[in-house]
Formats: sequence, C-alpha cells, structure tokens
Amino acid sequence: MDKLTVIKIGGQVIDNASDLKQFLSSFKALTGHKILVHGGGKKATELSKKLGIEPKMIDGRRITDGDTLEVVTMVYGGLINKNIVAQLQARGENAIGLSGADGNLIPATKRVHPTIDFGFVGDFEVANINTTLLQSLLAQDITPVCCALTHDNRGTMLNTNADSLAAGLAQSMADQFKTELVYCFEKSGVLIDVNDESSLLKELSFDAYQQLKGNGKIVDGMIPKLDNAFQTHEKGVGVTIKNALQLNETTGTQLI
Amino acid sequence: MDKLTVIKIGGQVIDNASDLKQFLSSFKALTGHKILVHGGGKKATELSKKLGIEPKMIDGRRITDGDTLEVVTMVYGGLINKNIVAQLQARGENAIGLSGADGNLIPATKRVHPTIDFGFVGDFEVANINTTLLQSLLAQDITPVCCALTHDNRGTMLNTNADSLAAGLAQSMADQFKTELVYCFEKSGVLIDVNDESSLLKELSFDAYQQLKGNGKIVDGMIPKLDNAFQTHEKGVGVTIKNALQLNETTGTQLI
Repeated sequence: MDKLTVIKIGGQVIDNASDLKQFLSSFKALTGHKILVHGGGKKATELSKKLGIEPKMIDGRRITDGDTLEVVTMVYGGLINKNIVAQLQARGENAIGLSGADGNLIPATKRVHPTIDFGFVGDFEVANINTTLLQSLLAQDITPVCCALTHDNRGTMLNTNADSLAAGLAQSMADQFKTELVYCFEKSGVLIDVNDESSLLKELSFDAYQQLKGNGKIVDGMIPKLDNAFQTHEKGVGVTIKNALQLNETTGTQLI
Repeated sequence: MDKLTVIKIGGQVIDNASDLKQFLSSFKALTGHKILVHGGGKKATELSKKLGIEPKMIDGRRITDGDTLEVVTMVYGGLINKNIVAQLQARGENAIGLSGADGNLIPATKRVHPTIDFGFVGDFEVANINTTLLQSLLAQDITPVCCALTHDNRGTMLNTNADSLAAGLAQSMADQFKTELVYCFEKSGVLIDVNDESSLLKELSFDAYQQLKGNGKIVDGMIPKLDNAFQTHEKGVGVTIKNALQLNETTGTQLI
C-alpha cells in the first residue's frame, strides 16, 4: 500500500508567518502522499472583534452563530486556506484547498445537543467522507489542504473541529493507504507537566492515557485530542503528536 | 466533442439571496459539463468599509493593496465561493470551489503598468491554465466553481477580473469541448439604450460592435466585457450575454 500522512496544524503555527513558512517547507519535504488539515488561529477572533461580533459562550462552550459562521467561512475557507495553498504552490507542492462542501468531501449534520444549541456546528460520520475524490486527487499528485468546515447538504456550511476532521480523514483512508496521522501543535508532544518540555512521553498506550487522565495529569484540550487520536489508532493508523516545527524529526509522542 | 458551458455571474445576482437561489437552480438544470465563475458583489466593499479600509483609486482605477487583497481572498475565495458550492451541493450538483492557486489552476503575474501600481492584481496567459485539472474534475462529473483570484507562484494570491478569467477558462477548453461562454448580468444583454430593455441586440458582430463603440452607444464596463467576449468568440467559442435570471431561456445577445 502507498503511504499517506495526514497532518493537522493548529492556530499557533498559522498565526506566526515565519513558523508557517518553516512548517510548509518541512511539509513539502515529506515523501509520499499527504493531506494537510488546518485549524483557525487568531485571525477569526480578531476579525470578529473588529466587526463587533461578541464571542458567544454557553457553559464554557463556544457557539457558532450566523455572523460567526460568516467569519470562519471567510477566514478558514478563504484567507488561511488560500494563503497556505499559494505558499505550497510556491514550494512546488501542487496543493488544492478544500472545505467539506467542495466535491461533497464531508457531508455533516448540525449538532443536536439536549441542552445547548451550538449553532452552525457540524458533526460527521467517517463513512460519509468522499474518499473517491481524495484518491483521485492523490493519484494526480495533488495534495488536499482541508479547512475545518463541513456542510449540511442543505446549503449551509458548518464549523467543525479540526482535530476530529483530521482524525476522520485519516480513518477514512486507512484501508486504501498505509496511513499516519500527525497532530502538530506548539508543544513537543504529550507532556506529564505541561510547563516542562522534558516531561515528554515518547510513547503513550491507551491504558497509560486512561491512568494519566484519571490522575489529572492530562487535562483540558488534550483530552478530546487524545480521544480522537486513540480512536484513529484503533483503526490501524499510526499516530504521532509533535511540535509543528519538528515535522521531519523523529520526536514527539507516538501512540502505541 | 462533449459540451461545456462556462458561465460567469456578477455582483448583482450574488448580492440578492433569492436571485442567487433562482440562478443556481437554473444552473443545476443546464445539461452537459459546466464551469461557474463568480465575481465579487457588494460584500467585499461592505467588509472593507466595516474594517476601515479606504478604497484606493488611481486615475479612476481600483487598486488592490495588501488589506484589500486579504478582504477579497476572504470574501471571494471563502464566503461567496463556499456559499455557492454548498447551495449547489444542496441541489445535487457536485461542485468544487477553486481559486487560481488551487491545483495551480491559473498561475498569473502581478500586473506591470508604466504609470500605475495596481497592487495585487494578476494577469494570466490562457496557455498557462491547468486544463488537465479541469478535465479530470469534469470527467468525474464535478463542476468547478471558480472565484476571480489567481496566484503568482511565489506564495501570493492576486485579484483578477472575473470576465477575463471566465473568458480565459472558456478559451483554454475550446479544443477539448464544444464550449459556450455565457456572461450573465442584470440586463437582458447588449442594449443600444442602456435604460431601455427593448433596445436589446439579439445578435452582435464584431464590425457592428466596433461601429457602436465608435458612436458611443456601447460604453464603460461593456467595452472590456465585449473585448473579452469577441476574443473568446474568435477561438470558436459560442458567446452569449444575458440576464442571470433567464439562464435557461433563449434570450440575450449572441455574438456572431
């Protein structure tokens, strides 16, 4: 089977122009088929603020109202996506920007929750991902660059978690390619002490994860990230969590 | 040869949600391969105003400075493009949004002018359009939806005239498909008296166009539009200029 690496980058590397350039050069240097998934970064928050759109939170959860959906569609689907695609083209990497609406890549449904209306937030089934489109692009040596937007098949875009989207894409391709998922962020990997980079776990098993979560050593945003990661690992996908600026180095936390 | 229709819509139909819905339903109903090219609309101007970006003009020509490039990348490449793609998906039309950077569809160069620096404005050569990508998508029954952005192959997006882009796409495909170009706008077609819809010219030859231009009957924005149109017609492409809300009717001005 051919090799496929699905790499997700988050806000920090996107917000810093020189970090992004460094990352994209490393991305270009990777061999084999690739898919890049990007999150948002500060730009959407900044634009919302400039436009006087107040961030809406319910029970500490961010709500995507209509105005916010416009902002994320502009920033994720337009500004960030096209900026990354143009910079990859400049490096000789033939990239194509995709939202989940493009080519019906990721049909989703508006989230239903018993008490919270999250607004225009989409959840998707891995089985519904349009792998035919991805395979066709990869066969033409075109690298998909996916923003974290899906659509409801009724004409509306939906905001979707970028970690889940990357995990879903990797899972959907796992029977066609020898697939790896790499979650890139600003830390070296999974740390026992979030303020101490030397506390990096080079390997992490599901049992160890459960224990660390129980002890309160792994908290906050790392929990949904690792839930997505282990779910993907279970499907036979190799998963690494590492620093975005060490993409080509053998570093980070490898799930075992 | 298979039939291909390249349709360009402008701002007016994009700005009006119900007109856009009507247009997209007519677009879906068209048979054969299709490519949709869309312009901007008021949204970019509105967003610029809200962000305090002053429109820059030199000698009556609009300049695309860095801030404006960000706005058009967000609005054309993100908001409008994804909105159209999602609405076409809802109608069962498998659309894919593309800028000129995506799949290296339209490499361009920053405009050089002896006296005016137009900023981030791109001009392209028809011969450089990536027809392989378009052919591959059309063969998969995927309909490209192109926004009027190109890229300089050095990492920067460029603002490009939507009429020229549609004309270029039609010309580039003319030897592979029986190609038609349809310029849609808010008028019935080319009018002798711009305020009188009954003065519609059902047919227009290049000689008649030159005469009407000489007489001052055809002025302003119609001149570059018709220059693009006749240049495309010369390449064996059928060209019609018509009302966006009469897409499926035999109306408008046919170039002869």
